[in-house]
Amino acid sequence: MAKEKKLVEAITSMEEDFAQWYTDVVKKAGLIDYSSVKGCMILKPDGYAIWENIQKELDRRFKETGVENVYLPMFIPESLLNKEKDHVEGFAPEVAWVTHGGLNPLQERLCVRPTSETLFCDFYKNDIQSYRDLPKNYNQWCSVVRWEKETRPFLRSREFLWQEGHTAHATAKEAEDRTIQMLNVYADFCEEILAMPVVRGKKTEKEKFAGANATYTIEALMHDGKALQSGTSHNFGDGFAKAFGIQYTDKENKLQYVHQTSWGVTTRLIGAIIMVHGDDSGLALPPQIAPVQVMVIPVQQQKEGVLKKAMELKERLKKEGVRVKLDDSEKSPGWKFSEQEMRGIPIRIEIGPKDMQAGQCVLVRRDTREKTIVLLEQLETAVKELLEKIQNDMFERAKTHRDAHIYDAHNYEEFTQIILNKPGFVRGMWCGEQECEDKVKEDFAATARCMPFQDQEKISSVCVCCGKPAQKLVYWGKAY
Amino acid sequence: MAKEKKLVEAITSMEEDFAQWYTDVVKKAGLIDYSSVKGCMILKPDGYAIWENIQKELDRRFKETGVENVYLPMFIPESLLNKEKDHVEGFAPEVAWVTHGGLNPLQERLCVRPTSETLFCDFYKNDIQSYRDLPKNYNQWCSVVRWEKETRPFLRSREFLWQEGHTAHATAKEAEDRTIQMLNVYADFCEEILAMPVVRGKKTEKEKFAGANATYTIEALMHDGKALQSGTSHNFGDGFAKAFGIQYTDKENKLQYVHQTSWGVTTRLIGAIIMVHGDDSGLALPPQIAPVQVMVIPVQQQKEGVLKKAMELKERLKKEGVRVKLDDSEKSPGWKFSEQEMRGIPIRIEIGPKDMQAGQCVLVRRDTREKTIVLLEQLETAVKELLEKIQNDMFERAKTHRDAHIYDAHNYEEFTQIILNKPGFVRGMWCGEQECEDKVKEDFAATARCMPFQDQEKISSVCVCCGKPAQKLVYWGKAY
Repeated sequence: MAKEKKLVEAITSMEEDFAQWYTDVVKKAGLIDYSSVKGCMILKPDGYAIWENIQKELDRRFKETGVENVYLPMFIPESLLNKEKDHVEGFAPEVAWVTHGGLNPLQERLCVRPTSETLFCDFYKNDIQSYRDLPKNYNQWCSVVRWEKETRPFLRSREFLWQEGHTAHATAKEAEDRTIQMLNVYADFCEEILAMPVVRGKKTEKEKFAGANATYTIEALMHDGKALQSGTSHNFGDGFAKAFGIQYTDKENKLQYVHQTSWGVTTRLIGAIIMVHGDDSGLALPPQIAPVQVMVIPVQQQKEGVLKKAMELKERLKKEGVRVKLDDSEKSPGWKFSEQEMRGIPIRIEIGPKDMQAGQCVLVRRDTREKTIVLLEQLETAVKELLEKIQNDMFERAKTHRDAHIYDAHNYEEFTQIILNKPGFVRGMWCGEQECEDKVKEDFAATARCMPFQDQEKISSVCVCCGKPAQKLVYWGKAY
Repeated sequence: MAKEKKLVEAITSMEEDFAQWYTDVVKKAGLIDYSSVKGCMILKPDGYAIWENIQKELDRRFKETGVENVYLPMFIPESLLNKEKDHVEGFAPEVAWVTHGGLNPLQERLCVRPTSETLFCDFYKNDIQSYRDLPKNYNQWCSVVRWEKETRPFLRSREFLWQEGHTAHATAKEAEDRTIQMLNVYADFCEEILAMPVVRGKKTEKEKFAGANATYTIEALMHDGKALQSGTSHNFGDGFAKAFGIQYTDKENKLQYVHQTSWGVTTRLIGAIIMVHGDDSGLALPPQIAPVQVMVIPVQQQKEGVLKKAMELKERLKKEGVRVKLDDSEKSPGWKFSEQEMRGIPIRIEIGPKDMQAGQCVLVRRDTREKTIVLLEQLETAVKELLEKIQNDMFERAKTHRDAHIYDAHNYEEFTQIILNKPGFVRGMWCGEQECEDKVKEDFAATARCMPFQDQEKISSVCVCCGKPAQKLVYWGKAY
């Protein structure tokens, strides 16, 4: 019983200490465990199952756009990593180095991939010869390693799971189109499946990926008003192609350099789900991504026929494609309710002798706690409609929260007032100089999250930081 | 055109040089490419798609038996690897060591997992407390690293993809049952999906896994008569539990050690598919595992209506759930036929103006080259029946070949004659002493593949090697 108690005991409240609340939830909802390797985490079944659903849905969307999966080695020889100057500067300080194979020192050190641009370039150099070989739209699902100093479950760990797409194209335009296309795949996925609204935009030069011409990003707002970069898509132009010598003969038989992109999302998305939808009872999963959508919990299950009826409801829903489980353990219904809430399962069905007599059961929404009494013969329809409604409501609620935390600043005084007092995004014009980004970072530990695609109306004609003429609107914010 | 030629040019014939034939096929069928990291290979789209199908089908079968997926870190601290004596002795000589994180040396070296028993034990130590927490049936899909000296694509590489299941149970019997259960999952999968017959059996003490009480294996016979260990399942008893201190309180509130198993298959299975089913025209994939089951190839596609009709056939089959593609490239039909054969696509459909006029098309089997003329209105049924027939025929053909290469030896002279002249399995009794295994290995580079579950009738009462009394039947053979 000691273990049961731990699972449902009060977690720290969000208002009191958001960071502690987050740590409590990832642990008590059974998503992760810490390992004996500092900064590396264990994805437990409930955590990994969310990632499997993310994979399944994204992989389907990738393949619809013509992407093919491959697998490249996890090691990069030092000389290969060094080939593109900006790239190596960005990553070398945070890679893990393999120096021995078995009992012998290696002739050349290998780093464990922090990302695989260099490996894909080395591969493409031989794999691409003619315009007929283009485009290459390859992706891999794997883990990568970055030797971070400070780590947090899902948000920043030394090893994490992700996908990395790497494409090669005949023209600059095709590469740019693919970069934007994949950003939109990510954004649509976040909004439709994770019920998480995002701002789509472009990173500033300071914030772009090491070696990229341009980086695009989707930025989500967490419940505490901090931003989370949730996916990025990079256009490399022909920079890597020139560093690695990736050329093809075009239709006129002339040698040309390819244009490349890369794009990725990580298990960080699970952190985003927690911080956008969770509450003081624990995790709250949007139905589309929830590994278990419905938990059937019998009440007075020792009474004749109750367990059998609960099982029957489960089977009926399963037949309809609902991801449903039955909790027939010996715990009390109260414990079971708390556990189901902690794990973020979108709906629970309560069924006891009285309900059976009345030919009904009770549906309880995880997100609002709202109860609905449903006639047993209408169960399937009611559950499917409710799942859809929860999905939509969760998105709308997150969007309302996000929109209520976007503020406009016209000068540095307003900016200061907002960033110090109002967690959220601050929209402010920017002159384009890195000095202003540096100042904002130094003064408030805030950064330019992105220059949005939509929503570009100029809210002023001068830079919110230095007051010089400004053309670009920027979403500023503190970020994870 | 230079590239096209390369793809369809003659590969080395199997009879001439089986090893070279194999290397030619993996490369020319587009399954793999070599990387600049010695001993690590690149899984190209056609190779990875086979692995995806293996994953999908095995994962489904695992989950039906109650297995849940998790993900553990790829690094193992040296002190953790050292905890179980036999295990570390088996693996330490062939692991890759990470010694630096970023710019700093690590306090303790980390090895890149060669297998994850130690990590799972470290995890279970905290995760398991009561009998209520058992069994744990966890699995992970990942890559592992073993610093092999000699490598061959799919069969032995320094990094390879696999799944590793790790379970913990209350009793010794439950652990043994799970070990056998998973071996049977593998065996059924190989026979039903890969059309590859296997011998199920137990490894000798000499051949068992480092740290296991017992190792079970499935052994397949390749076309050249060499054996390939295709999957293993280990029962650890409570050896690891004692080394790591994994205990639970039972119903009487007494502390007990858990009993553990592990089991895995790897991308090696792709090598097995190639060497069981391939021929001098390249790869031949069983329909159940083929990423593309049917290739529609138009003949005289420049003629009016041909491409449209070919597209229509493709769409009709796609609607029926057949994995079908259309080759509408500008290559000649002859090139396309060779490519489809090289890639091992089970059926091609030829459709040209004459066929259209006659209201028919031609189905050509990859495995036998047999042609069937089919009325267009019967296309779906004909294709589905043919796919099923090919799957069955491929299994039967492989089984006939395998069975024709199993020989009985009653004494060392017979054994010698067979092993020197007849590639295949040699069935021979064994006294149980390692000296005899060592002698066979030294004399012929052959090993005890397994002691079979079925087919155990004693073919003699004395050891095939030393002539002493023997109880155990062994399948001996040379192996990859």
